[in-house]
Amino acid sequence: MTVPSFAHYDLHAPGSRYALNTPALVLDLDAFERNVARMADIIGAHGKNLRPHAKSHKSPTIARAQIAAGAVGCCCATLDEAEVMAAAGIESILITSPVTTALKLDRLTALAGKAPDTMIVVDNPANAEALAARASAAGVRLNVIIDVELGFGRTGVTSPEAAVALGQTIKSLPSLAYQGLQAYGGHIQHTIDPDERLALCRQAHLKIDAVILALSAIDMKPGIVTGGGTGSHAIDAREGPFTEIQAGSYVFMDAEYETVIYESGKAWPFENALFVQTAVISTNVAGFVTTDAGTKAFALNGPAPRVISAGLETATYSYAGDEHGRLHLKNDAVRPVIGDVIECVVSHNDPTVALYGHYHCVRADRLVDLWDVSARR
Amino acid sequence: MTVPSFAHYDLHAPGSRYALNTPALVLDLDAFERNVARMADIIGAHGKNLRPHAKSHKSPTIARAQIAAGAVGCCCATLDEAEVMAAAGIESILITSPVTTALKLDRLTALAGKAPDTMIVVDNPANAEALAARASAAGVRLNVIIDVELGFGRTGVTSPEAAVALGQTIKSLPSLAYQGLQAYGGHIQHTIDPDERLALCRQAHLKIDAVILALSAIDMKPGIVTGGGTGSHAIDAREGPFTEIQAGSYVFMDAEYETVIYESGKAWPFENALFVQTAVISTNVAGFVTTDAGTKAFALNGPAPRVISAGLETATYSYAGDEHGRLHLKNDAVRPVIGDVIECVVSHNDPTVALYGHYHCVRADRLVDLWDVSARR
Repeated sequence: MTVPSFAHYDLHAPGSRYALNTPALVLDLDAFERNVARMADIIGAHGKNLRPHAKSHKSPTIARAQIAAGAVGCCCATLDEAEVMAAAGIESILITSPVTTALKLDRLTALAGKAPDTMIVVDNPANAEALAARASAAGVRLNVIIDVELGFGRTGVTSPEAAVALGQTIKSLPSLAYQGLQAYGGHIQHTIDPDERLALCRQAHLKIDAVILALSAIDMKPGIVTGGGTGSHAIDAREGPFTEIQAGSYVFMDAEYETVIYESGKAWPFENALFVQTAVISTNVAGFVTTDAGTKAFALNGPAPRVISAGLETATYSYAGDEHGRLHLKNDAVRPVIGDVIECVVSHNDPTVALYGHYHCVRADRLVDLWDVSARR
Repeated sequence: MTVPSFAHYDLHAPGSRYALNTPALVLDLDAFERNVARMADIIGAHGKNLRPHAKSHKSPTIARAQIAAGAVGCCCATLDEAEVMAAAGIESILITSPVTTALKLDRLTALAGKAPDTMIVVDNPANAEALAARASAAGVRLNVIIDVELGFGRTGVTSPEAAVALGQTIKSLPSLAYQGLQAYGGHIQHTIDPDERLALCRQAHLKIDAVILALSAIDMKPGIVTGGGTGSHAIDAREGPFTEIQAGSYVFMDAEYETVIYESGKAWPFENALFVQTAVISTNVAGFVTTDAGTKAFALNGPAPRVISAGLETATYSYAGDEHGRLHLKNDAVRPVIGDVIECVVSHNDPTVALYGHYHCVRADRLVDLWDVSARR
């Protein structure tokens, strides 16, 4: 696709933000840069490392900006993402989900040959043995992190005993280099009430403490304890057993995180930085207008996109198919006309980003750059 | 992304279908080819044209296969799709949604200069005037189709009077070439009960008849009447006022259409041809296993993916995040192990296809080709 190239755009021209090839993913660089700096400050103030999750943005450009602000590297949810980040020169990558098929074990060992600091999580002795066999055959050593389940039921060992059994397997395999623990509370991040979230974090911290104790008893005290997310980052950095925090969504601050209450009495330190721009294509029915952004322009696993365009802040957005949206107007006096462009805060950032090939980077009303969503898949 | 290249795969090898880089989009070419032939037969038997909707597949390779089987061209939901199809040599393209922004009007006239048979729908006199002005400035003539609203409330003129007003505007603009009507009943396609669907189709046909009559009275009898979808194709081709049918999903037959009952007493003439392959990555919790295909691997606006892997037909699928799925096992005796691959019928084909860069084309248990999802966006 050649469509979103500079050739179509009058870069840096006043108002060029509002003349994109809709639907377009819009990144406000000023807000983004403030978000990057603020998270680095928060985590750094607690003496912890920040390893932001690249699954949120899928962009080596953004990962590099986070590292320039102090991050120690990045997390990747998939081997695909890790390959893209490594190819772009990111050195310290943690793959946060197990890699289990033969084809991917080959790709992983090839990656480790080129990017030796790469780390992979493991939650099963059979997987540890498969990783070790492939690493040994390929002549590389794989850095492994034991994944610990915290109540989300997705991946990870489910008890200190299972962690110890897996640890002993890892210790017996010379082609694996044990680095520490991962413990991600996916069920905690979007807990709306801050007191409830604090309680869930403390339960999780106790579980992690028990695993650390059990592993320490077999001389496998973890060097790295990695976890946390945008919802829990402040609690995890302040009082958790972590050496590093994996938050990702903070760079964009989507409509889903807006519904979560930050620490009691405090506003979120992050700003909306990611938007979708859509154009009005039909206006023949009272009460709403039809746009060109539907379920192929917004991820569905989040709240409705929030309309931010001037005069339309009370309008609500719904989907009218894969390529169509509906802007429901509270006030038909302010009725968009065909060709008008509307901007919305994205519903849920990670899977929304995956729907686009490019970020349209803006500063105020100017389009200033295009960045690839390189690890889109 | 270089990941899904032939270099990773042992093409044509027995079993190579089951060793893909998961999550992978899998197209069963035998089933696909039968679906293409069957729809061509059904529509042809009624003396109508078939103009399959490319929004379902986003692949010029598939559009060409449909044309080789008798289709008159293709539909596109977006200008982006149309540009890809035209660049691949597809000559007769109908863009089924209005194009309204200045940037896109420029792209549309450029496209019409290269692919003069391109047609665009219009539902508003102001849009007709904008199209005509750009076409005139660019020295091209644009083929336009009046879009008629049938009860879905998305795009289209909402009355015969509005069609006539729009028709008169079109007639007054020499850079527009009037071609006919589009009338798509998006609200009808997934109506489960066939009798209810028949009644809705007949209501729609009456609306279209009224518009045809009104336009004929001003000497604008439509040459083309285009519409219909996979859900309504048989009724529309048999007794509707259409000259051509726009069905798209039939090529894949997804889990959403499976829930719809075909004509009373008859089975669907189309087979499941599109699957997602996913790998088991974690098995530490009783009752389910975790896979690597979540909300970035399946579109959410449809039923859950249907598991087809041998021994797991009673398992159900749910999402456990953007990169993770959960396979709930009815029978823990048949418990997949890590690294096992599972195939599912896709939830909703159009937006699922948009999540992938490639089709992994298979025949029985062999991977035989990779096709780009060229118009993914």
